[in-house]
Amino acid sequence: MQIILLSGGSGKRLWPLSNEIRAKQFIKIFGTVDEYHESMLQRVLRQIHKNFSQVSIIVSTSRNQKSILKKYVDADTDISIEPCRRNTFPAIALTAAYLRDVKKISDDEPIIICPVDPYVEDNFFAKFKDMANLVENSAANLVLLGINPTYPSEKYGYIIPAENNLVSDVLEFKEKPDSKTAQKYIQRGGLWNGGVFACKISYVLEKSRELLNFDTCDELFKNYSELPNISFDYAVVEHEKNIKVVRYIGDWKDVGTWNTLTEVMTEKNIGKVQFDDACENSHVINETDMPIIAMGLQNIVVAASPDGILIADKARSSFIKPFAENIHEQIKFIEKSWGVYKVIDVSEGSLTIKAILDAGNRMRYHSHEYRDEVWTVIEGNGRVVLDGRIKSVAVGDVIKIPAFVKHTIIADTDLKVIEVQIGEDITVEDKILWED
Amino acid sequence: MQIILLSGGSGKRLWPLSNEIRAKQFIKIFGTVDEYHESMLQRVLRQIHKNFSQVSIIVSTSRNQKSILKKYVDADTDISIEPCRRNTFPAIALTAAYLRDVKKISDDEPIIICPVDPYVEDNFFAKFKDMANLVENSAANLVLLGINPTYPSEKYGYIIPAENNLVSDVLEFKEKPDSKTAQKYIQRGGLWNGGVFACKISYVLEKSRELLNFDTCDELFKNYSELPNISFDYAVVEHEKNIKVVRYIGDWKDVGTWNTLTEVMTEKNIGKVQFDDACENSHVINETDMPIIAMGLQNIVVAASPDGILIADKARSSFIKPFAENIHEQIKFIEKSWGVYKVIDVSEGSLTIKAILDAGNRMRYHSHEYRDEVWTVIEGNGRVVLDGRIKSVAVGDVIKIPAFVKHTIIADTDLKVIEVQIGEDITVEDKILWED
Repeated sequence: MQIILLSGGSGKRLWPLSNEIRAKQFIKIFGTVDEYHESMLQRVLRQIHKNFSQVSIIVSTSRNQKSILKKYVDADTDISIEPCRRNTFPAIALTAAYLRDVKKISDDEPIIICPVDPYVEDNFFAKFKDMANLVENSAANLVLLGINPTYPSEKYGYIIPAENNLVSDVLEFKEKPDSKTAQKYIQRGGLWNGGVFACKISYVLEKSRELLNFDTCDELFKNYSELPNISFDYAVVEHEKNIKVVRYIGDWKDVGTWNTLTEVMTEKNIGKVQFDDACENSHVINETDMPIIAMGLQNIVVAASPDGILIADKARSSFIKPFAENIHEQIKFIEKSWGVYKVIDVSEGSLTIKAILDAGNRMRYHSHEYRDEVWTVIEGNGRVVLDGRIKSVAVGDVIKIPAFVKHTIIADTDLKVIEVQIGEDITVEDKILWED
Repeated sequence: MQIILLSGGSGKRLWPLSNEIRAKQFIKIFGTVDEYHESMLQRVLRQIHKNFSQVSIIVSTSRNQKSILKKYVDADTDISIEPCRRNTFPAIALTAAYLRDVKKISDDEPIIICPVDPYVEDNFFAKFKDMANLVENSAANLVLLGINPTYPSEKYGYIIPAENNLVSDVLEFKEKPDSKTAQKYIQRGGLWNGGVFACKISYVLEKSRELLNFDTCDELFKNYSELPNISFDYAVVEHEKNIKVVRYIGDWKDVGTWNTLTEVMTEKNIGKVQFDDACENSHVINETDMPIIAMGLQNIVVAASPDGILIADKARSSFIKPFAENIHEQIKFIEKSWGVYKVIDVSEGSLTIKAILDAGNRMRYHSHEYRDEVWTVIEGNGRVVLDGRIKSVAVGDVIKIPAFVKHTIIADTDLKVIEVQIGEDITVEDKILWED
């Protein structure tokens, strides 16, 4: 059994903490017993490992999330990279082809495709074993995980089971019906689709050949930008006649909006906040180092990051997307595989960054065409490489890096650098990578 | 006639836009016809000049506000500096002594003592002439400006006039009575004290000699920190029997809290903000460059500056003081006479600042004992002086300034510098000023 975690998505709904690079699954917001905050991705991985002593996980993600993702998964976790952002069907096809072509896994192997953001109880993941068994030992092409619906939502897929058992054949699957139709499905005993699909690798690749015209990893990768932007639910599940469903009994929450996310927070705040006594049912998530004072707030969520500040009535917060899409600012806080960088000043013709490298890490060897850089080390020790020459650096050292000079920094201890970039046209694209 | 504007106060009630250095009178928040935002101080000065073609103004302020104050007043405006913060009586005594001893003004000259923050109509200031006339031509020792009260507030002084005329003798003055007593004063035809006092210089200096033991500028200045922390209202006005009052008829607003300040704002926001349609009676003042999204807010004021973020129900916002006093962060945004500086990063053993100098201005020649600095010019041209040696600098130039090296920068054009300070003990006190 192979678990494919789908970790894509740009997460505009959790602005300003999520953005194109830091998707919602990386926000450390969930309290655990020992007061450590874990992200959605960390929570799901912990729950999977709790259910399975040995398990193969591959994470499907987009190119710009690879760097941050590596910080959140074990070194031996496989990652399948989408060359650009498409929907779930191309991402699943590419990952299945990667498992067969690159990892040489038999295409009879059951795969469990699971989103990275279900907020559920631990036994949700125990159902994966039942689903894999059905893939191997029943005639079903596809096995779904059904959730008891609580209201006629228009946001989910509906599964109509043939019987009211823990395992059942599926009579019909309908993705995102209108509320009236959803109501009818619920009256017929319909279940919400929990977003988990089980099938054989070969099943995905057959559908890929049939609907996307390609079924090898190379072909899919090369032609990825031409593939249709379609979900697995619409492209495959709605048309499949031979489906079984396994029921999950327990809490299941879609924590994709601030409203629902604050419901599962164990504290009313994260970060520097003072509340007055008149605040009720209000949550503040403060990722900046600016102090916040909250007074007399009722049913309000506040989320602040270097990228912006949201102040919203909780019920209204689900409608944030168009407002967040209006914002086209430089992203200010970026997690990289080597540490984090924060944009601390944006001026005409200049950008100032604070780079924090963890001991033992290093930036990739690179150069820029259109900007000079001045680095000042403010904490720690390391080595700088400039056009092949290595030099030790410590607190107070200043390194001038003119355009075209290849450079990197290696952190021998935890290391902090203030980097002043100067140039007429400063973009993240102006970066040429070099072999050491 | 001399006008003394009292421009002290730390303004915790308008946190995070006001702080020890930037008092509330410097916040540019008031819309005028040409869309330019002016501060309370600028508004008051404009209104005074509108009423008087020729007028002598002296501003009494504290040492740490001198630098910012100079940006807001004409070059020929006198400034009287309190060596440390006391209340209004010592500040008024010091300024009166300065007028007599340093400016050699006759101590028969009428002075009008006025706070810098009354939000009033232009004709409020026309009353100053009537008050000065009464000082010169009546037997009154003190002339007050009365305001029609609108409710039995505990925040103001109450004046009981003998008659219901535009000018009247005063039977009684009571500073900040409780609400029940205030109600009785209002029933007796009592007026609020508008905070404006008119008298002769000699009157203040007599009271100073009598109550503070000193009456010369030198003595008062030298012994300032030992003077009692008492207001003019309590120390002098409550005990004076020979008072007249002049009535002002018109709008008078105390805009010292967010609640009252937003009432006089002409727009619902200043700075980068998106409101959704469900926001009602809510104001956002955003002095950061971070975008804000406000959704479904009812009667909320949001104020954001690099020093922090307030989100408050408007009615609750008047109770901010104890919360603001709990915050002991490095002040992030400081206006200086030469421009502004912004703290853009605070790290252990290092502070990074963006200094913005206006063309023609210069920092004072100074050195530090406990920190090195690295300056990178990111915009403009200027000259740096290091231990007496002058050097031209332009964009991209890096200047290293070790501890003890005397230095300054002169802006030949508008100039921006990123300054990285490195040292174990970085404080604003570590600054030694030198003659050029």
